[in-house]
Amino acid sequence: MPSHAAARRPGGRSGRVLAAIHASVGELMGEGADKITFPVIAERAGVNPTTLYRRWSNVNALLEEVAVAALTRDGESAPDTGSLERDLTEWADIIARDITRPERVRYLRAMLAARVEAVSHCPVTETRRDQAAEMVRRARERGEPTPTASQILDHVIAPLYHHVVFALRVDHEYARRLVRDVLAMVR
Amino acid sequence: MPSHAAARRPGGRSGRVLAAIHASVGELMGEGADKITFPVIAERAGVNPTTLYRRWSNVNALLEEVAVAALTRDGESAPDTGSLERDLTEWADIIARDITRPERVRYLRAMLAARVEAVSHCPVTETRRDQAAEMVRRARERGEPTPTASQILDHVIAPLYHHVVFALRVDHEYARRLVRDVLAMVR
Repeated sequence: MPSHAAARRPGGRSGRVLAAIHASVGELMGEGADKITFPVIAERAGVNPTTLYRRWSNVNALLEEVAVAALTRDGESAPDTGSLERDLTEWADIIARDITRPERVRYLRAMLAARVEAVSHCPVTETRRDQAAEMVRRARERGEPTPTASQILDHVIAPLYHHVVFALRVDHEYARRLVRDVLAMVR
Repeated sequence: MPSHAAARRPGGRSGRVLAAIHASVGELMGEGADKITFPVIAERAGVNPTTLYRRWSNVNALLEEVAVAALTRDGESAPDTGSLERDLTEWADIIARDITRPERVRYLRAMLAARVEAVSHCPVTETRRDQAAEMVRRARERGEPTPTASQILDHVIAPLYHHVVFALRVDHEYARRLVRDVLAMVR
């Protein structure tokens, strides 16, 4: 069986095994599967369940890993237009378009459902913080007044995610309004 | 059986039947019950399942109703201290304390899990908007510069809920910082 072969030879194949596991979790989430367990994922991915039990402490840890990977991999460099307002507007637009895609909404909900304990570190948020800090750094070098990266997270990113998670409307105009507001704090 | 009596006599008993249904849903959510279906709720509440099928189009509609009721019923009048900054600070503190209680977090997650379709109207948000509008109205009468109620929702309420939903830290200092930021927009 291919599952046993994959489990027995983690070396050169581990990348492909991991990709198959991630893809299977993604498929199951996309199908709105009711019960996503290690055996269900293992069957779909064609790997031995012990591979999963060995690598992740529980299924929620795996679901979060997949959700974070899906939510942070695309279009991830911060815009560099020469003005903080344009950078932030473009960035907020990209994020708004991205997180409102139905498959992203499903991932986001799956990640939040998996996250029952308080976390001190959220990889999705940290990626956005790094991008915000980069845009702020460039704006300061140009001598523009800038909010902090934390303020950009609180007042642009948080409301966008809040609207998506609460199933409220998110559009271009909303993203722009948030950017105008956060810049008004430092005017 | 009491269930049949309740179902047959909706008049004087309908309030008590509704309360029993809400309480049962609350108990099941609190227990982290895996499958909350109409038959499960009906059994717990001691009512006939047809009562539920007749009143709610599906179980998610009932879960959302219960979650909204739980999230909006307590401590719901907006503070009136004579200054918008103090009003907002007190209000943000009350909300931060309320929505971080473990049973509230569970309700919030249950509500979001039930909300799979986009909504144009979110009763939790509308309650907060009414309170914000009331504080803004009083501040304007006193001649204070004020953000709009929408800005208060976007920049105080949204980040608080975002942190709770993402299981990030929410405390008094965070609530205060959000209020200072939204007031800085109009200074």
